Amino acid sequence: MPSSQRKVFRLLASCPDRVGLVARVTNFIADQGGSIRQANQYDDPKTELFFMRYSIDATDFAGSHHDFAEAFEPLAKELSMDWQVTDADARKRVVLLVSKFDHCLAYLLHRWKVGDLACDIPCVISNHETLRPLVEWFGLPFHHVPVPKDPAGKQAAFNETARLIEEAEPDTIVLARYMQIFPSWLCETYRHRVINIHHSFLPSFVGAKPYHQAEERGVKLIGATCHYVTEELDAGPIIEQDVVRIRHSDTIEDMIRYGKDVENTVLAKGLRLHLQDRILVDGNKTIVFE
Amino acid sequence: MPSSQRKVFRLLASCPDRVGLVARVTNFIADQGGSIRQANQYDDPKTELFFMRYSIDATDFAGSHHDFAEAFEPLAKELSMDWQVTDADARKRVVLLVSKFDHCLAYLLHRWKVGDLACDIPCVISNHETLRPLVEWFGLPFHHVPVPKDPAGKQAAFNETARLIEEAEPDTIVLARYMQIFPSWLCETYRHRVINIHHSFLPSFVGAKPYHQAEERGVKLIGATCHYVTEELDAGPIIEQDVVRIRHSDTIEDMIRYGKDVENTVLAKGLRLHLQDRILVDGNKTIVFE
Amino acid sequence: MPSSQRKVFRLLASCPDRVGLVARVTNFIADQGGSIRQANQYDDPKTELFFMRYSIDATDFAGSHHDFAEAFEPLAKELSMDWQVTDADARKRVVLLVSKFDHCLAYLLHRWKVGDLACDIPCVISNHETLRPLVEWFGLPFHHVPVPKDPAGKQAAFNETARLIEEAEPDTIVLARYMQIFPSWLCETYRHRVINIHHSFLPSFVGAKPYHQAEERGVKLIGATCHYVTEELDAGPIIEQDVVRIRHSDTIEDMIRYGKDVENTVLAKGLRLHLQDRILVDGNKTIVFE
Amino acid sequence: MPSSQRKVFRLLASCPDRVGLVARVTNFIADQGGSIRQANQYDDPKTELFFMRYSIDATDFAGSHHDFAEAFEPLAKELSMDWQVTDADARKRVVLLVSKFDHCLAYLLHRWKVGDLACDIPCVISNHETLRPLVEWFGLPFHHVPVPKDPAGKQAAFNETARLIEEAEPDTIVLARYMQIFPSWLCETYRHRVINIHHSFLPSFVGAKPYHQAEERGVKLIGATCHYVTEELDAGPIIEQDVVRIRHSDTIEDMIRYGKDVENTVLAKGLRLHLQDRILVDGNKTIVFE
Repeated sequence: MPSSQRKVFRLLASCPDRVGLVARVTNFIADQGGSIRQANQYDDPKTELFFMRYSIDATDFAGSHHDFAEAFEPLAKELSMDWQVTDADARKRVVLLVSKFDHCLAYLLHRWKVGDLACDIPCVISNHETLRPLVEWFGLPFHHVPVPKDPAGKQAAFNETARLIEEAEPDTIVLARYMQIFPSWLCETYRHRVINIHHSFLPSFVGAKPYHQAEERGVKLIGATCHYVTEELDAGPIIEQDVVRIRHSDTIEDMIRYGKDVENTVLAKGLRLHLQDRILVDGNKTIVFE
Repeated sequence: MPSSQRKVFRLLASCPDRVGLVARVTNFIADQGGSIRQANQYDDPKTELFFMRYSIDATDFAGSHHDFAEAFEPLAKELSMDWQVTDADARKRVVLLVSKFDHCLAYLLHRWKVGDLACDIPCVISNHETLRPLVEWFGLPFHHVPVPKDPAGKQAAFNETARLIEEAEPDTIVLARYMQIFPSWLCETYRHRVINIHHSFLPSFVGAKPYHQAEERGVKLIGATCHYVTEELDAGPIIEQDVVRIRHSDTIEDMIRYGKDVENTVLAKGLRLHLQDRILVDGNKTIVFE
Repeated sequence: MPSSQRKVFRLLASCPDRVGLVARVTNFIADQGGSIRQANQYDDPKTELFFMRYSIDATDFAGSHHDFAEAFEPLAKELSMDWQVTDADARKRVVLLVSKFDHCLAYLLHRWKVGDLACDIPCVISNHETLRPLVEWFGLPFHHVPVPKDPAGKQAAFNETARLIEEAEPDTIVLARYMQIFPSWLCETYRHRVINIHHSFLPSFVGAKPYHQAEERGVKLIGATCHYVTEELDAGPIIEQDVVRIRHSDTIEDMIRYGKDVENTVLAKGLRLHLQDRILVDGNKTIVFE
Repeated sequence: MPSSQRKVFRLLASCPDRVGLVARVTNFIADQGGSIRQANQYDDPKTELFFMRYSIDATDFAGSHHDFAEAFEPLAKELSMDWQVTDADARKRVVLLVSKFDHCLAYLLHRWKVGDLACDIPCVISNHETLRPLVEWFGLPFHHVPVPKDPAGKQAAFNETARLIEEAEPDTIVLARYMQIFPSWLCETYRHRVINIHHSFLPSFVGAKPYHQAEERGVKLIGATCHYVTEELDAGPIIEQDVVRIRHSDTIEDMIRYGKDVENTVLAKGLRLHLQDRILVDGNKTIVFE
């Protein structure tokens, strides 16, 4: 059967470990006529939590992934699971937030357009007008929500941003170089679904102007970090990181240029892993089932 | 319970895919009182083979891993599996073959001595006397089997080498810069258990003097490849690879020096993955369940 | 004095080595009132050629870089130099050739637009219409020159391509995933000024479909190579290379996706080094004065 | 002439920039009959200091590198240089300090023994007896200087260590996992000649137990940093850094194992660059003339 006619569900779950856990889950899958294509399990010895990701050929299962989830719910409850079932073919909805820098946005949009990022993008929101032409060239709605410096204006701006996000019904929010501190109440609403790219190899150079900090310290490698946003700045669970070698003759401007390459690559990879439901959060760390 | 009192088995298997396969295996494990700690499955869409690795807490299972294997055999047969069960605490026996270069041998032996490579080393075999003092300093038997150039002498040397290997009852053989072509009949006997380190980023620069070839071609990165030895030279399944950046001012001697760093690292990593039963062979490729 | 008012020339040269060579060149520079800001020299022990790159503060020199070159010519002749003088502020003219894949083109154009690639782009030439909208969005001329399969048609197409290139008066031509074999007579005309990105870690996987070849061989890293085009396919002097790690579960499609990241990065870096006159060609190798 | 009969000097210098600086130095070299084989210059726009490294074929110069230095001194003084002249064939004297971990020490000693590190090792000093057998197997003197916890005992121990170091007349001191804080007065005496390997990607995870910190933070890459020791802990000029990828399933023990690979490689590379006089210190950064 051609793969386009196959129905693939993904089951992601974490729960306290217990004997026979995997057998019970895999029995359930088999009982529904599902066939496991790829599976990963990991038992964190520190948190004593068990994590699992199953990619299931559910062609022989009569219903949708919602039906599958409904059938799974009693077992999930019994096992005290934090869980979800997704349809591998359903495209996640991703809202992008940007400021003035175009590199990450342009990178994601071009990769998205040719099918390298399997998602829908209901809109792009920015605190500046700068990137409107780029977004509109891709035929996507662009919302400009300026963020003033005064607390009341800022609060209003974030309320408006939140309203636009909510309207877009996103699965995921990507801060593609959004130079505002994302409000913690919004992080909470979209917990482990807000992805940021930080332009340093965290935890080095937390906060503003990391390339300047890197130049000051004289490091030989600079990097980028893709992480879930939490209320504590630059301290959320890390999804992906990479570095690039620099030399003494590289100026801050050179570092920013090389940094853009690695920011693009790291964000695209992190987002792709997230869209494929390969990331589970374990305390302040991520389990990455590649 | 402290981890030292736990009993951990590993089940590795590949077989044709079928519905309910994973459920049947995990049921078996649960029925024996086993608890799955870490698991990986992969379904190769090209070969249509299914690969799995389970790390099983078998503390509640009364017998040894042999008993576990015996219990598993009927199911394995029914599922047409290529399989094995190992005891995670049992140290594999690794015979090392070397010629004159000491870097890989020294690296493995020092890492082994401090417990970074969980194996026993019954002996080291070499076609030269050069490395005897190093091996004996570690208190290990060293066998010198010169390999003459004439076919009859060569054949006799390899018979003697084979005899020494057989006597050592190895699980694994490592060619740690052994500058002889390992006979294909020996590869066959120890199929997917003979590990070689090649000093290039294969398939670039197959054969002799790869650093000279790399210098000639003017590449900007050189590498090393750890692979299982098969009868076709430098063409066996690749376990691990890595590269290191070089510059135009690096001479062949510099490249050899930097190359040693990456050879050491790649061989140590490849061997460690192998000792942890993380490598399954899929045609001419490896599945690496990290 | 602010750097914007400074005048910076670059002197690049290669010649047979001789005693006092550097002193004579640096004396010449000092005599013209030039001040050396950054300098690199390299003496290839194999070819016995001497390579040099000087970045010269020529603010106190009355004329242009053409005048400087004219003054230098007698010495260059005497020393049998292959040489050039460039003005660091003069933007090179770069013609881009593409086919249907947009990733490298989009990457270069976005980086160019925000000033990360200091060049002018007189036009983009393609054998397909596919990328016209993207090019025109950037306000750049787009020429469509289809390349038929029959020899006469192909010849005519390349004549037309050559005419368009010539008209654009480029310093540099970039094949940003141009899926045609660039005619050797054009390579000759623009010797060491035609840059290609090859989607493999050369010399592995020469020719067509390198990701398919890589998947077949089961390598653990895939890469990209930026090189000058010469008449022998995929065999020209390598400017820059990089790799990215893949896993057994990555399909060819995944490899193509990850490959795009590294193609983009490697091409952008290679072109940037070329635009900064940091690359000298030494036989079939490059000297990279970073 | 075979390279073994050639005489090669290295001139390293930094000084305030001025017009004609390079010409005056290269003239001096030419006047002595020296021929420049490889040269690098760098002008730091922030500190306004000029750095240079010349590798000079001085076969036609009658005297030693001391004579060459004596001849150069007046010019160096006039140009307010911080400078030195070394003989490329003279082997630097390197004293190694270690505690209990053997990996860095074993790595350096094996590489040194086969000629990959061109230096002499007058002795190894340790605050433990653990590594005596290893050091003595290489035929090198081993000094055991225990470092007690009480201030007076500690002071006495460091006085004794200093005495042993002084006696060894080293050019360079390497802390190859020496788990004591090196006294700042000793750093001052051997300024920019004490090399340490830190087992993290500085400035991340300063201080003790960096792998534990890395595990806690959930980073995806761990690293090592080779740097000159200054009085401020882990804050001296960075010579070389590298990283290695880890996964969620890697325990601290795994991270320590992978970390050893990268510590070895980074320390060996940093020391090799230092022995080749390729490192100049620019404030708290290094200029690396590779």
